[in-house]
Amino acid sequence: MAKEITPRSQDYSQWYLDIVKKAGLADNSAVRGCMVIKPHGYAIWEKMVSILDQKFKDTGHVNAYFPLFIPKSFLSREAQHVEGFAKECAVVTHHRLKADPNGNGLIVDPDAKLEEELIVRPTSETIIWSTYKDWIQSYRDLPLLINQWANVVRWEMRTRPFLRTTEFLWQEGHTAHATREEAIAEALSIHDIYADFAESYMAMPVVKGVKTINERFAGAEDTYTIEALMQDGRSLQAGTSHFLGQNFARAFDVTFLNENNQKEFVWATSWGVSTRMVGGLIMTHSDDEGLVLPPKLAPLQVVIIPVPKPEAAINDVAEKLLKELKSKGISVKYDTDEKSRPGFKYAEYEMKGVPVRVAIGQRDLEKNQAEVARRDTREKEFVPLEGLGNYVEVLLNQIQENLLLRSLRFRQENTREVDDFTTFAETIDQKGGFVSAHWDGTTETELKIKDMTKATIRCIPLDRKEEEGKCIMTGKKSEGRVLFAKAY
Amino acid sequence: MAKEITPRSQDYSQWYLDIVKKAGLADNSAVRGCMVIKPHGYAIWEKMVSILDQKFKDTGHVNAYFPLFIPKSFLSREAQHVEGFAKECAVVTHHRLKADPNGNGLIVDPDAKLEEELIVRPTSETIIWSTYKDWIQSYRDLPLLINQWANVVRWEMRTRPFLRTTEFLWQEGHTAHATREEAIAEALSIHDIYADFAESYMAMPVVKGVKTINERFAGAEDTYTIEALMQDGRSLQAGTSHFLGQNFARAFDVTFLNENNQKEFVWATSWGVSTRMVGGLIMTHSDDEGLVLPPKLAPLQVVIIPVPKPEAAINDVAEKLLKELKSKGISVKYDTDEKSRPGFKYAEYEMKGVPVRVAIGQRDLEKNQAEVARRDTREKEFVPLEGLGNYVEVLLNQIQENLLLRSLRFRQENTREVDDFTTFAETIDQKGGFVSAHWDGTTETELKIKDMTKATIRCIPLDRKEEEGKCIMTGKKSEGRVLFAKAY
Repeated sequence: MAKEITPRSQDYSQWYLDIVKKAGLADNSAVRGCMVIKPHGYAIWEKMVSILDQKFKDTGHVNAYFPLFIPKSFLSREAQHVEGFAKECAVVTHHRLKADPNGNGLIVDPDAKLEEELIVRPTSETIIWSTYKDWIQSYRDLPLLINQWANVVRWEMRTRPFLRTTEFLWQEGHTAHATREEAIAEALSIHDIYADFAESYMAMPVVKGVKTINERFAGAEDTYTIEALMQDGRSLQAGTSHFLGQNFARAFDVTFLNENNQKEFVWATSWGVSTRMVGGLIMTHSDDEGLVLPPKLAPLQVVIIPVPKPEAAINDVAEKLLKELKSKGISVKYDTDEKSRPGFKYAEYEMKGVPVRVAIGQRDLEKNQAEVARRDTREKEFVPLEGLGNYVEVLLNQIQENLLLRSLRFRQENTREVDDFTTFAETIDQKGGFVSAHWDGTTETELKIKDMTKATIRCIPLDRKEEEGKCIMTGKKSEGRVLFAKAY
Repeated sequence: MAKEITPRSQDYSQWYLDIVKKAGLADNSAVRGCMVIKPHGYAIWEKMVSILDQKFKDTGHVNAYFPLFIPKSFLSREAQHVEGFAKECAVVTHHRLKADPNGNGLIVDPDAKLEEELIVRPTSETIIWSTYKDWIQSYRDLPLLINQWANVVRWEMRTRPFLRTTEFLWQEGHTAHATREEAIAEALSIHDIYADFAESYMAMPVVKGVKTINERFAGAEDTYTIEALMQDGRSLQAGTSHFLGQNFARAFDVTFLNENNQKEFVWATSWGVSTRMVGGLIMTHSDDEGLVLPPKLAPLQVVIIPVPKPEAAINDVAEKLLKELKSKGISVKYDTDEKSRPGFKYAEYEMKGVPVRVAIGQRDLEKNQAEVARRDTREKEFVPLEGLGNYVEVLLNQIQENLLLRSLRFRQENTREVDDFTTFAETIDQKGGFVSAHWDGTTETELKIKDMTKATIRCIPLDRKEEEGKCIMTGKKSEGRVLFAKAY
């Protein structure tokens, strides 16, 4: 099975597609740019959803659900926003099909044309702020801390499963506040949740930063981002949190009476992460044998395999271990299927990224041991049956840590400070990775660099040092380094 | 607050809309027929989702996700299916907007017309079976037990929040089997899960039955339904499970090699429940004071209110109770907001359907007691502080049981056997409820009865007695009674 995967070194892009397919994560569909998320891929997403959902709830947010459709005219209300989304949206124009009078199947019924076309939501700021107008009258109604789990559609020309698809699943938070400070604090606090989720659960280190004006969300005053470095040296924007100022409140006339009985526009944030995170997870850890999953996000954490097949003595040990691991809250399966041989099963579970495999054979039992293999390093070890459950539990934690350390090391090795444009262009072109360099702060220079090297400013890191320098392109004054990379 | 609700006796339909609005369950949206599900309504749906999802997983099903869009031509493949859905679907015809050259906002870009129009899924049989064709080759790939949580769109002309909306949320199971028997068994086993969920969690008794040919799902060979009686004497179809035969396998050419290496078409089921269940929940239990929720589905089960406001002694008792109830897994809140008076809070939590209210006042404390009010009967009682937590826990169970018994009694009182058409028509018209009557088994008679009385055959109950009789309309032979009612 593993043989069917194109090695990363040969063709990274094909390697990714092979993993997605062979690990059973997603399939192409009959609809251009839309994927089918297969059970294994969806189970990973479900784990992400349940962890994030709890974090949002723990910080006072509640879920709600807003319509899939947005009246066309809503999109025009916020000037930047329409600019960003009008070019890539699915438009519903009719509400009925009918039999073709010429007998060629179905046609759109011209009598069922909508008075106003509807847009399939690319994001929900407009429909939500048109609703908040009715929900917010006074400072007592604030803050309003709402999240939505939903599907959205952006008509993308070049798509890749999880990373960029026409339809994707995501959560979008939309909060309303009485003050600028409180809204900014909300955007930053969500930014922290995203970063913590990426590092503590996905084992994917991220750089926390703010976007340049050019890279901001359409309609935002500030966009906070988490950027992760993939194994091919490209950056993935894995989640963003926006301070929207009063832009949407003004566009939809959402005001409130403050404590002094004065009318003010409401302050807003919005923030989201999507199924794109699954793509980031795949690209951060996987290898040429298939998917590698951090234990905290693995739908199946441990598989027990009888060698060569189930027998009474093996079953006894396996079921005892199964029970013990389950009681520890570990997700585990004893694979007693006799149609496949152990070697086939090993390859299959490696392909699917199961973090730990325990093989139990008759000869092992005679020595009171079992063979434990870890997916991340592919190391195998014989472990005494006595204490095996605890061993596996500790190993899962070690794998989780090792994956984070490994990707941190990778990022460290692939982040370079560069101070002149020639070296910059060479580094971007030949080595990839993050390049930390001085920039004069103008969109003009940013676009020029992008044009010449395909590298974009991923973010202005929040923790950057105060350090004056000279822009690598123009030689003008710079107030600190920013992070460049080619990006997904 | 409660005063603002129209009494059921005066206008049932307005009463329902008032509850939806005042209890904060849903709002109308700017998009025709689409509702906004507000946080309280969504929290109820989330509870339903998590319970049902676990039941599906416990019976071997896995979740996946299929595209929102369906190519127009897919719909025509199954003849019955297209008949059922073509007339009410949202059609995407373009993928871009552009600025109106005349300066009037945005227009649909005529250059971005799709080659083939896309339908927003009204249900996913067609896109899913077109995918299953690639997933199923041999009997080893079967059964395929997949569920999807998703939004769907059916262009409805007359909508009501939760009960009938253009967009709604649901789960749709789509399973594939090697034999007819196994597929039927699957449809029936899901039917059991639905009925158990309705009774054990929603406290909503249901009649389990099979639909007549006329009322079947478009494309099914048999539709199993659960039917619940609402307080106005109308029936609500609360969930359906379909045996699809080989119809979709034939339409999408999905075959498998059986154990004898012979090619056969695959057997199918599909099944779903939706946000409509929230409507059923509201209509089954609520009263003129607001929403009534069974404890098992109440987002907040207990509220503790200090009377008239928080003080040290009251806080001590309240926090101890809070902690104790939380440790029992009960969802509870201590409402210390000093901006509202207790009476206002009482009305508010009654409106929202919180099952139990504990009021703690200074004078109560002197007597070592608290006032406990139950939402279902609106009875109040003074309960000793000693053992208060256990009392509340038991009370929640009693409320859950009482709601089921109360609605069972209501259904019993409103189910009538009738043997002649005059009495039948009178009963339907003046009393409503379920009417159990003989029918000759033909669609012709069924439609005639519907035409004259607006009553439809809700189902042929699975547990009906063998009992020969004469059809109330034609006098022809009948093999048993069927259940008639006006329906939502």
